[in-house]
Amino acid sequence: MRQGAGLDVAALDRDDPLRHKREAFDIPDGVIYLDGNSLGPLPKAVAPRIAEVVAKEWGKSLIRGWNDHDWIDLPARVGGKVARLIGAEPGTVVATDSTSVNLFKVLAAALQLRPDRRVILSDSGNFPTDLYMAQGLRDLLDRGHELRVVAPEDVEAAIDETVAVVMLTEVDYRTGRRHDMATLTAKAHSAGSLAIWDLAHSAGALPVDLQGAGADFAVGCGYKYLNGGPGAPAFLYVAPKHQGSVTPPLSGWMGHAAPFAFDLDYRPAAGVDRMRVGTPPVLSLAALDAALDVFADVDMEAVRAKSISLCRLFIAEVEARAPDLVFTGPHDFTGRGSQVSFSCAYGYPLMQALIDRGVIGDFRAPDIVRFGFTPLYLSHADVLRAAEILGEIVAAKAWDQEKYHRRAKVT
Amino acid sequence: MRQGAGLDVAALDRDDPLRHKREAFDIPDGVIYLDGNSLGPLPKAVAPRIAEVVAKEWGKSLIRGWNDHDWIDLPARVGGKVARLIGAEPGTVVATDSTSVNLFKVLAAALQLRPDRRVILSDSGNFPTDLYMAQGLRDLLDRGHELRVVAPEDVEAAIDETVAVVMLTEVDYRTGRRHDMATLTAKAHSAGSLAIWDLAHSAGALPVDLQGAGADFAVGCGYKYLNGGPGAPAFLYVAPKHQGSVTPPLSGWMGHAAPFAFDLDYRPAAGVDRMRVGTPPVLSLAALDAALDVFADVDMEAVRAKSISLCRLFIAEVEARAPDLVFTGPHDFTGRGSQVSFSCAYGYPLMQALIDRGVIGDFRAPDIVRFGFTPLYLSHADVLRAAEILGEIVAAKAWDQEKYHRRAKVT
Repeated sequence: MRQGAGLDVAALDRDDPLRHKREAFDIPDGVIYLDGNSLGPLPKAVAPRIAEVVAKEWGKSLIRGWNDHDWIDLPARVGGKVARLIGAEPGTVVATDSTSVNLFKVLAAALQLRPDRRVILSDSGNFPTDLYMAQGLRDLLDRGHELRVVAPEDVEAAIDETVAVVMLTEVDYRTGRRHDMATLTAKAHSAGSLAIWDLAHSAGALPVDLQGAGADFAVGCGYKYLNGGPGAPAFLYVAPKHQGSVTPPLSGWMGHAAPFAFDLDYRPAAGVDRMRVGTPPVLSLAALDAALDVFADVDMEAVRAKSISLCRLFIAEVEARAPDLVFTGPHDFTGRGSQVSFSCAYGYPLMQALIDRGVIGDFRAPDIVRFGFTPLYLSHADVLRAAEILGEIVAAKAWDQEKYHRRAKVT
Repeated sequence: MRQGAGLDVAALDRDDPLRHKREAFDIPDGVIYLDGNSLGPLPKAVAPRIAEVVAKEWGKSLIRGWNDHDWIDLPARVGGKVARLIGAEPGTVVATDSTSVNLFKVLAAALQLRPDRRVILSDSGNFPTDLYMAQGLRDLLDRGHELRVVAPEDVEAAIDETVAVVMLTEVDYRTGRRHDMATLTAKAHSAGSLAIWDLAHSAGALPVDLQGAGADFAVGCGYKYLNGGPGAPAFLYVAPKHQGSVTPPLSGWMGHAAPFAFDLDYRPAAGVDRMRVGTPPVLSLAALDAALDVFADVDMEAVRAKSISLCRLFIAEVEARAPDLVFTGPHDFTGRGSQVSFSCAYGYPLMQALIDRGVIGDFRAPDIVRFGFTPLYLSHADVLRAAEILGEIVAAKAWDQEKYHRRAKVT
């Protein structure tokens, strides 16, 4: 019986209520995939679904596919599947565009709802593209908005009555630190501000309760824990209370009340559909749609419990085997998401050496090695083996600064 | 020997230099597809390419695909294939986002280059989403911009020194009328204005010479004549002279000078890459990439010559067989694109009856039946047969107002 951190790993896996979900994925032999937080692996249902959409729906129905296969409502159908995972009300989520573009849409809409305020509050742990999009919008509007970026732990204190919008990513992409969505949203509302949540590292990773938290807007990513494939469509949430009043800044025909009337003037559709823009990407949406079916019978509380168990095992095993690696972020899982990061001076070559041994995580500048824990397809045995391999590499100094000098375009 | 409009149709097809391209497409038996201007049919190379990208690139390489298969540069590689078709210089085109989103980006960028002017000039033949996006941007900026919409024939006279940007679609989606890109761009420049061209009904349909015309910006669609599949990624062109000075309004991480440095502040990439926003949609881009390979050995002048021949045949045959149908737009092909439209009081049920007979075109409100002519997979015999079927339906009054009442979501 293999032991890890004093745990009976075999027993944990035997009693795992999510054990059967591993069969829903194609994962290459010899790979322990700890990067589902960056790009989810291939669900087995995707290849046949895409093949059918290409050969039958597109190939045979041609233009008729928009009606015959209801392509036109794919953004809402896929959005509905995401809604269940993030505690969103029916009719509040669409799958569309990229996370960055969706963030622009909800941020511009939120600022229009708070016309007398000028501060966008965010934190230095936000994923950079969110900050970049806010900077671009600020400069485009040229009306004296300020993007105020504070340390993650200082966000709550920084919310005051000058703040139009609190714009945060729930789980920090580097450290795994998790904001308290309900508390910060309530604080925002008490100051008269609105709250936008980026769920890139939350959706499919842990239970999210947008409705319970009273979030105003949210966005998130389709290609991480939702396993929709590289560059999968993102999603966007608008709370019911705002749906009738938001003005879409990207007012495209698919957000029009009557797209096929071809009026010359824009009139927004009812509900969240007004946040759609161009023609929906049917092939990509079909892949995400099939991928989301993996979650149909999954209890997100079970996902969370197993995620914590996997993370704890990994942290303990790595700390015991590789003292050069310094765990980042809080140890208390109330304040953590589903990935684990360590800072390490030789982080980049270490990660390359791990990948060469089949343990795939990723590196985030300047010195972070990051591992995502995805309970649908990882076992405790996988995680223990990954820690053993990491320990072997560190002990043997088998990371080679020369061999693994940083040359890749994408880290 | 079958005759059409006094032409030897069999001889025209026998001597057709594009005859062999039909083999590059999967088109269902019994279908004459006259809607490639709305959604191109399935190129045979797409299904195996997508299957490989899903099963091998995503499934086996997982996150490593970004480097191993150079997914990260797909927008530029696909853009380069489009560039050849639209007379664009190397390094000026990226395949990204939707046409609507791309139009927003280039329009906002153009307005920033003309800060002292307030007029966006367009025409009532522009595709509505372009007008909608301009309306949304105008309202978002709230700086007194005016979207001035004139009749297509009045555009040239309306260009004056108040105009910041002339924003036009080259080929009218309803009538097929084609603007003179070189003349209007020159007029815009002489007035100190900039010119944005939407090539949705041009790219892959007829020769386009952005460089020769001196166009400042262009956008276009991947799913019409380029055959990239439903909702395929769109493209965007920035003239070399503007690439160093344009400010991307949607300033996402993929347009950053160093996306994987994860800086907190945005710095635009060099060149057209700064107009990228979020993570590229790899599956959709791969489909478009494979579809564009059909054009690799195609001379766009040959496409144009055959397109005119097909259109002329169809117009003559329909006018002879169905006098209720009134041809719209100019007869002179210098001023026409590659589709043909007729207005007809019973246009909607007529089109449904045609589709039931395998002749697929489309309907555009209020009363337009529209037929696209795509020389890569249509023969003169196809076109003659389509006109015969149309004539039979009209003669027999076999369009049924009751059966074909307008019920579809998408027309």
